[in-house]
Amino acid sequence: MERCAYVAGCDGVSTVRAAELLGIEPSGTIPHSLVLLLGSATEALRAFDEVIERKFPRVALVDTFGDEKFESLEAAAALENPPAAVRLDTPASRRGDFGEILREVRWELDTHGYGGVGIFVSGGIDEEAILELNDFAAGYGVGTRIAGAPPVDFALDIVEIDGDAIAKRGKESGRKDLLRCESCRRRIIVPAETEERLCECEGRFDELLEPLVSGGERAAAAPQLADIRTHAASEIAGLGLSIC
Amino acid sequence: MERCAYVAGCDGVSTVRAAELLGIEPSGTIPHSLVLLLGSATEALRAFDEVIERKFPRVALVDTFGDEKFESLEAAAALENPPAAVRLDTPASRRGDFGEILREVRWELDTHGYGGVGIFVSGGIDEEAILELNDFAAGYGVGTRIAGAPPVDFALDIVEIDGDAIAKRGKESGRKDLLRCESCRRRIIVPAETEERLCECEGRFDELLEPLVSGGERAAAAPQLADIRTHAASEIAGLGLSIC
Amino acid sequence: MERCAYVAGCDGVSTVRAAELLGIEPSGTIPHSLVLLLGSATEALRAFDEVIERKFPRVALVDTFGDEKFESLEAAAALENPPAAVRLDTPASRRGDFGEILREVRWELDTHGYGGVGIFVSGGIDEEAILELNDFAAGYGVGTRIAGAPPVDFALDIVEIDGDAIAKRGKESGRKDLLRCESCRRRIIVPAETEERLCECEGRFDELLEPLVSGGERAAAAPQLADIRTHAASEIAGLGLSIC
Amino acid sequence: MERCAYVAGCDGVSTVRAAELLGIEPSGTIPHSLVLLLGSATEALRAFDEVIERKFPRVALVDTFGDEKFESLEAAAALENPPAAVRLDTPASRRGDFGEILREVRWELDTHGYGGVGIFVSGGIDEEAILELNDFAAGYGVGTRIAGAPPVDFALDIVEIDGDAIAKRGKESGRKDLLRCESCRRRIIVPAETEERLCECEGRFDELLEPLVSGGERAAAAPQLADIRTHAASEIAGLGLSIC
Amino acid sequence: MERCAYVAGCDGVSTVRAAELLGIEPSGTIPHSLVLLLGSATEALRAFDEVIERKFPRVALVDTFGDEKFESLEAAAALENPPAAVRLDTPASRRGDFGEILREVRWELDTHGYGGVGIFVSGGIDEEAILELNDFAAGYGVGTRIAGAPPVDFALDIVEIDGDAIAKRGKESGRKDLLRCESCRRRIIVPAETEERLCECEGRFDELLEPLVSGGERAAAAPQLADIRTHAASEIAGLGLSIC
Amino acid sequence: MERCAYVAGCDGVSTVRAAELLGIEPSGTIPHSLVLLLGSATEALRAFDEVIERKFPRVALVDTFGDEKFESLEAAAALENPPAAVRLDTPASRRGDFGEILREVRWELDTHGYGGVGIFVSGGIDEEAILELNDFAAGYGVGTRIAGAPPVDFALDIVEIDGDAIAKRGKESGRKDLLRCESCRRRIIVPAETEERLCECEGRFDELLEPLVSGGERAAAAPQLADIRTHAASEIAGLGLSIC
Repeated sequence: MERCAYVAGCDGVSTVRAAELLGIEPSGTIPHSLVLLLGSATEALRAFDEVIERKFPRVALVDTFGDEKFESLEAAAALENPPAAVRLDTPASRRGDFGEILREVRWELDTHGYGGVGIFVSGGIDEEAILELNDFAAGYGVGTRIAGAPPVDFALDIVEIDGDAIAKRGKESGRKDLLRCESCRRRIIVPAETEERLCECEGRFDELLEPLVSGGERAAAAPQLADIRTHAASEIAGLGLSIC
Repeated sequence: MERCAYVAGCDGVSTVRAAELLGIEPSGTIPHSLVLLLGSATEALRAFDEVIERKFPRVALVDTFGDEKFESLEAAAALENPPAAVRLDTPASRRGDFGEILREVRWELDTHGYGGVGIFVSGGIDEEAILELNDFAAGYGVGTRIAGAPPVDFALDIVEIDGDAIAKRGKESGRKDLLRCESCRRRIIVPAETEERLCECEGRFDELLEPLVSGGERAAAAPQLADIRTHAASEIAGLGLSIC
Repeated sequence: MERCAYVAGCDGVSTVRAAELLGIEPSGTIPHSLVLLLGSATEALRAFDEVIERKFPRVALVDTFGDEKFESLEAAAALENPPAAVRLDTPASRRGDFGEILREVRWELDTHGYGGVGIFVSGGIDEEAILELNDFAAGYGVGTRIAGAPPVDFALDIVEIDGDAIAKRGKESGRKDLLRCESCRRRIIVPAETEERLCECEGRFDELLEPLVSGGERAAAAPQLADIRTHAASEIAGLGLSIC
Repeated sequence: MERCAYVAGCDGVSTVRAAELLGIEPSGTIPHSLVLLLGSATEALRAFDEVIERKFPRVALVDTFGDEKFESLEAAAALENPPAAVRLDTPASRRGDFGEILREVRWELDTHGYGGVGIFVSGGIDEEAILELNDFAAGYGVGTRIAGAPPVDFALDIVEIDGDAIAKRGKESGRKDLLRCESCRRRIIVPAETEERLCECEGRFDELLEPLVSGGERAAAAPQLADIRTHAASEIAGLGLSIC
Repeated sequence: MERCAYVAGCDGVSTVRAAELLGIEPSGTIPHSLVLLLGSATEALRAFDEVIERKFPRVALVDTFGDEKFESLEAAAALENPPAAVRLDTPASRRGDFGEILREVRWELDTHGYGGVGIFVSGGIDEEAILELNDFAAGYGVGTRIAGAPPVDFALDIVEIDGDAIAKRGKESGRKDLLRCESCRRRIIVPAETEERLCECEGRFDELLEPLVSGGERAAAAPQLADIRTHAASEIAGLGLSIC
Repeated sequence: MERCAYVAGCDGVSTVRAAELLGIEPSGTIPHSLVLLLGSATEALRAFDEVIERKFPRVALVDTFGDEKFESLEAAAALENPPAAVRLDTPASRRGDFGEILREVRWELDTHGYGGVGIFVSGGIDEEAILELNDFAAGYGVGTRIAGAPPVDFALDIVEIDGDAIAKRGKESGRKDLLRCESCRRRIIVPAETEERLCECEGRFDELLEPLVSGGERAAAAPQLADIRTHAASEIAGLGLSIC
């Protein structure tokens, strides 16, 4: 799961073993247990600041004992330099209008001169929540929802025998090409070896399918993790969406 | 508005001028301003406890700075004797699942030995909320919703002229009696002077209408506030509902 | 209630005592009781016309005994000059498609040469009804719905102590200005003493808040009723809406 | 259409030609044109009463000019003896709560001593309306809705060839019997010549199918209209429903 | 029913007796019984092709035993020349996504070189289905749904007596003209003899009503079936809709 | 995924590698490719019957070319002895009313004397489908839906420090016991070491939690696959549900 998330553009993973498998450094923030053990969010932040290498950003956890507004202001003032961000992991039962809470925290941080302190959000975050909170949140910690993507429903079917197009009813017979317009990114399926033609938008169609096995051998070496991630990022960039 | 609320069974009103008009003593709890001025819910509770006569119950306000759970536990332990109740005035933006918050506060108070400390709830409370929170709340402070009861839609119509039944179309003509069964409390409207008859439940029908003006004079003295309130309480009791 | 309605732009009030309090003349139309006593809508109209000063417009009440269509035509022809309007107070049980009834009355009045007789509507009218009936109605008599506006939910909060911005969680701290763009009328809330800046539409922001109490004294004399009404009218005019 | 309606239990038909085809006498009530020509519902009722044979019941039409309530009372008092019924053909635009209008007419008739005058309803009546109005209406005149019953969707299929069960896909093969329990009236389909068996309710199954053609000849004479109507009535009676 | 369908633009009717009444030749395709008797859709198609005059198009029935995809391909190849169309009468229980089935049959026919073979659809077809299937279907066989058009709700009313406009309440009084704009086809109703005026779109209004009876005599001879059909076709053409 | 499915009670898995990991024998039925290669479902069934060991049940695949009804009857008669079952993998586009199709196949098999041939269903089956099809289906092949169970949302929290109950807001503090009533299976959470008490149904509560790690060591050996499966089966049996 961590591999898929990292490939698709997430900045890091917090499970140590998964980071090792990916060959990257695990990342994370202050856990609730540290705040509970030291008895105060501010103490936990100071302890973290004292012990952890300077290259890791300081992110204060502000939801353990008190309200997001006051703990955020305390955290912003707790160290010599303001932390990089405050992290809100607000429990669901306190999350009436979470966008409103973020707006309020943002207002207070700005009013008190901490415009540079970002807001990091975690706890039951999904795609819907991200679209709602993007105005105020600078980053997200996502767990369950990114681990539970619905499986892609696929099947392997015979569509041609000795050059004759044939398929079970309900399946289209014959080899096919999957094309995508390089310009408007529309995708179409056409019979294989259809003469190339232009998209409605005048763009050229690229062939998306590539042979994986040829003559019983793997057709090409598997791409490296970094290459897949770069490829995913460029594809997503092509969609005209922003992702954090 | 306060008069209607008091008559209908509320225990008290917090507006000083309204209480004077009603001839009762105003009641209320610690305001947010006291907590903000003293800088802590616990300090505010202690100051209140020091100054206010002992006959008024101590109700701690626990939603100003911190989370309901921790402030409730602190308030429960702040005085020599536990307060009568903690008051939650949770802002709407933090009220994700308010019943869940109350359940949690109740658990923590009980787990730490404060089973006798009640929970008092205020802030945007309406009939729906009361039905949901009754398992955990011992009392409510209601403002806007009790002030905004929809007006009763009524009209004054002529239904008889010189003994002849006549009324505008859409209105039933003739004088009528409004009867209520003393037993099942079903109400029916019948032509005036209908011979008394028994309800389906075998109960006797009482006449609900009473003459207010007779010969141009007020027919009877206006009832006293206390009497109206006692009457309302007995009527409500007859409904088999509980009200706090 | 009458004061609010009059201030907000209604043309008059029908309760005599309320009109006295407002210092205006009460207004109204023929009541159903007159029609019932005289036995006919036409007789009632003629009696009204005979007795009432000429400065008051003649409005015939057409829903007591018969159908709106026939009573409207009769009323239009009952006096030497056609009345200013016919008033429909159709009971809810006969009001299948009230817009359709109005359209039909309008057709009949026009077909018979009474294009100058307006239609005045009363009885359970609310904002929804007005939007639907505006094509045919020239005026409305509104009672219950204008008396039952939902209370404005407000609270008094401390947001600053000795110059420090502080507020209960769920409330934004610090003094604020409420500004409105003189051009597009957009309203924004900003920290007090924010340097004036231009609206997105390039308009200038006006400050909406004015001090009511200063040094324990009332800051300015209370405005007169007529002035409030003029002010309300100009504000409503600024909305680009029509109101009758 | 009239034939089907009459067979299924309606008391009569109003189309003269259809009645002739059915061999029954046409029936009907005063038309709006008579009221419009004579200028008053009461005049129309008196004219009808004077001219029409006594064997036909007097039914006053009360919706042409005035309100149902007043015209009903006038009609009830117009003749020496009260009419059998008043007929309401209220236009859709005046039919806000038609059940409420009927309840009101019933109240006024009863209050003024005309408990024996029934209410007959026409105009856009369908099954839904009948279920709602049955408490107050004694009869209905139904036109469009009884003319527009949805066609029964049926098909003729081969299900057996030379004794072999075979049918197109989507159809069950083999000859079948259609059985109905004489007691609970449940219907089931079973393969033909299934040994008779008892219903779950212990009732005996009757065979519903009868041969219409045998050896190329009509198997039996066609039943008479009166017999079909009697049969339909007994079948409906078996359903435990009431029909007017 | 067949007359109405034919007049409104259907290409033919399959009931022999109805065709005789209309004076046209009945049309139809291979029935399921032929396929069941011969045991195969291909055999039925060949038998039909051998016996039926060449002027009738060959339409193969492909839903009796097998799947639409395979039977369509078999039928397309069964005769010396491909048939005009294949007919799908897919049972409701197999019709999960009927548009998808048609798209698939169209793909297979095209992929195998039978672009000229149309798809004819029957079985429970209604207006909704036609709008969904039009991309793939070249024709439709419609039965139940075309037989069950809801009756047009109409009434005959007196609206003028001796030149005076009068009508029952709920009906507009006075003679009226029904006009249609020759250009945008908008229809309006105006008092009779309204001076001609231009439509909002600047088009001229045509009078749609024509006298049917004049002086007790039929005003004009009844139009012929072919003329009505031509007229209906031109009217439909004017709507800018396509119909098959 | 296969491990979870097998543990939870599925009879077998079809992926060879997964079966090896589980230490069981993989199972499966005739694939579509065999039918396509041999050109007929019957040929595929006969080939399978000829080659595959007798201990594996014969399940005919009946959805490749033709309709479920006819292919099921052919398959039932294709071998010397009827096969154990027919498998329907009907494509979604043909699955209008899948329960109806199964009912029809069941009717035809029974009518032709193959009451012993079961129906096995695959293709997009989920819990909803199983509840609908259970009346006719004897087994299911489930893929995507069993692979995509939503992840269980869990978190690890500190709830006690040095014997003091404490937890982040939104979490209940203190160690807890998870109990289940042995009789009615109701589950409750109580503070740890709560004196045992009886369930409302008078049943005894069993403790569900067991220590996994003790003194840094695994508390007990991991259970064997077969034991887990047996345990799951007994738990499911206790629910009073049937599972196939």
